[in-house]
Amino acid sequence: MSTVHIDLGKDSYDVVIRRGCLKEASKEFNLVRKVLVVTDSGVPEQYANTILSQCREGYLFTFEPGEMNKNLQTFEKIQVSLMEHKFSRHDCVVAVGGGIVGDMASFAASCYMRGIDSYMVPTTVLSQVDSSVGGKTAVNLGSVKNIIGAFHQPKKVLIDPDVLATLPRRQISNGLSEALKMSVTFDPELFNLFLNDDPYEKIDQIIEKSIICKRNVVQQDEKETGVRKVLNFGHTIGHGIESTFLGSLYHGECVALGMLPMCSETVRVELAKCLGKLGLPTRLAFDADSVIEALSHDKKSSASGISTVYVEKIGSFSFVERSLEEIRDMLGVVQA
Amino acid sequence: MSTVHIDLGKDSYDVVIRRGCLKEASKEFNLVRKVLVVTDSGVPEQYANTILSQCREGYLFTFEPGEMNKNLQTFEKIQVSLMEHKFSRHDCVVAVGGGIVGDMASFAASCYMRGIDSYMVPTTVLSQVDSSVGGKTAVNLGSVKNIIGAFHQPKKVLIDPDVLATLPRRQISNGLSEALKMSVTFDPELFNLFLNDDPYEKIDQIIEKSIICKRNVVQQDEKETGVRKVLNFGHTIGHGIESTFLGSLYHGECVALGMLPMCSETVRVELAKCLGKLGLPTRLAFDADSVIEALSHDKKSSASGISTVYVEKIGSFSFVERSLEEIRDMLGVVQA
Repeated sequence: MSTVHIDLGKDSYDVVIRRGCLKEASKEFNLVRKVLVVTDSGVPEQYANTILSQCREGYLFTFEPGEMNKNLQTFEKIQVSLMEHKFSRHDCVVAVGGGIVGDMASFAASCYMRGIDSYMVPTTVLSQVDSSVGGKTAVNLGSVKNIIGAFHQPKKVLIDPDVLATLPRRQISNGLSEALKMSVTFDPELFNLFLNDDPYEKIDQIIEKSIICKRNVVQQDEKETGVRKVLNFGHTIGHGIESTFLGSLYHGECVALGMLPMCSETVRVELAKCLGKLGLPTRLAFDADSVIEALSHDKKSSASGISTVYVEKIGSFSFVERSLEEIRDMLGVVQA
Repeated sequence: MSTVHIDLGKDSYDVVIRRGCLKEASKEFNLVRKVLVVTDSGVPEQYANTILSQCREGYLFTFEPGEMNKNLQTFEKIQVSLMEHKFSRHDCVVAVGGGIVGDMASFAASCYMRGIDSYMVPTTVLSQVDSSVGGKTAVNLGSVKNIIGAFHQPKKVLIDPDVLATLPRRQISNGLSEALKMSVTFDPELFNLFLNDDPYEKIDQIIEKSIICKRNVVQQDEKETGVRKVLNFGHTIGHGIESTFLGSLYHGECVALGMLPMCSETVRVELAKCLGKLGLPTRLAFDADSVIEALSHDKKSSASGISTVYVEKIGSFSFVERSLEEIRDMLGVVQA
């Protein structure tokens, strides 16, 4: 077992990584109050039930899975549920599921009575390595991802790698794509593990190492005013593709396609090898105009262009301002 | 002219109070970027237009006035407007209007791309003395007021007392009720001004003094975890009545009725005199059960009761935990 401490002043919290810890949630979370367990119907019921059985007064909120339901309508339904059960400022929300559940539940918690406690139990590799650190919460509006949201740090995150047993291989690779992204910009040792080892076997180690990478960035720049933007490596084009293929491609698959155009030839060759091992795409047929239109809403955009991350050498990065035209040209690298 | 500095670390800002300052907004706000001016159709158009005429790229968002429109639907429409005009993280929102406009626009700004800059131009006495300090933003859900929101400090607030020329007397008294509330708990000198002077003539002075009272509290306790709760003097019963009479009674009128049961006999007599001078109600016919049901959703409630503010002597206060039954009994003081 290991605990990664995220030091953010009064918003500090721990990420606990331990096989079997889900059954001991009440030792880690304060569940002696009203608790709304938020999950989606794509998450095996047993996980939410394991948490509920440890609450003094627990309620369940389940929504339909998918990006199309990560919206203000679901947000409002959660608020109604909290209100109907007369939750006070001292009660809390527990998110049990993947990134969509985490974003949805945490954003709702951040707004109910201007903010109540939230805990996270991420049940996918993607949410374990990515959304468990950083406090970014959001919902989509139309086809634009994460355009409405807040920074809201959880009180604690519980990662039980045993829950991955029920996760399809494609979903596991989806999450490993984000861990791989972290290694490309920060950690040559972690990158070598992807290149020369079996990432599926070393998954506990990969989860911990990539959480530490992300923690180091977020601690420097909680509100993404500077270096935290490096976490968007692969995400400019990635989000554009994801918005265009809403629902049919996974986030990590889109990030895989988004990273390849944004690195040197040398890095690209090795990166493509790692992606291949994970069964992640390195080429895709898409309409470039639609992707460019979608990514023009990018939150990192300004009058002078979009701030993107470029990798010349594994373990390093630089920020490059690019016009939509330049990005359009770069799409050729992954367009089939 | 005077400037009150609100010191909240990196979220610090100034409240500028100056007759005629609306015409010079571009000297006080950074309007050399995209600006969404949010107002409602109850606010004289000239005020929003005065701001718009000073923007490099200004857009107008107008909604229908009233508490019933301070909701997630209007919130979503503002988000759509920001998105359609391709606002970036570096653009801003200016709220021009009363408290509802301020709450609505600032909450929308706090969530768009997880937070963009907002400025406030409060055009009512109530919003000038109350919502211009403290960064509380929120919308209603059903009949429950301010249940969904965020803490989001504006970058600057511009108070031009000249705008009050177009405000009906009842609306002016509505705002003076909040200023009077501030004097009861903090400032015997300001209270005497209400008791022995003409509050309408001394309005510039009252606005400044009550902003300073509120500033001193908010600086101690930005997120309302302690002493800031004193600002809710009169608001427990006040909000209960306001929810019950949605739209027909003004906020300050409900607070007037909410203060009287929460003070000693001596204070009550003098307070009732001040309220009478301002034409504010001191007695009302209402259904006690409806009021109690409405206030049971109070954000200051917990299992052990509702935290209320009691005033024994002008310029002082204490916090008292009260059950719903006790509060029901106290309603008799103002029930006709």
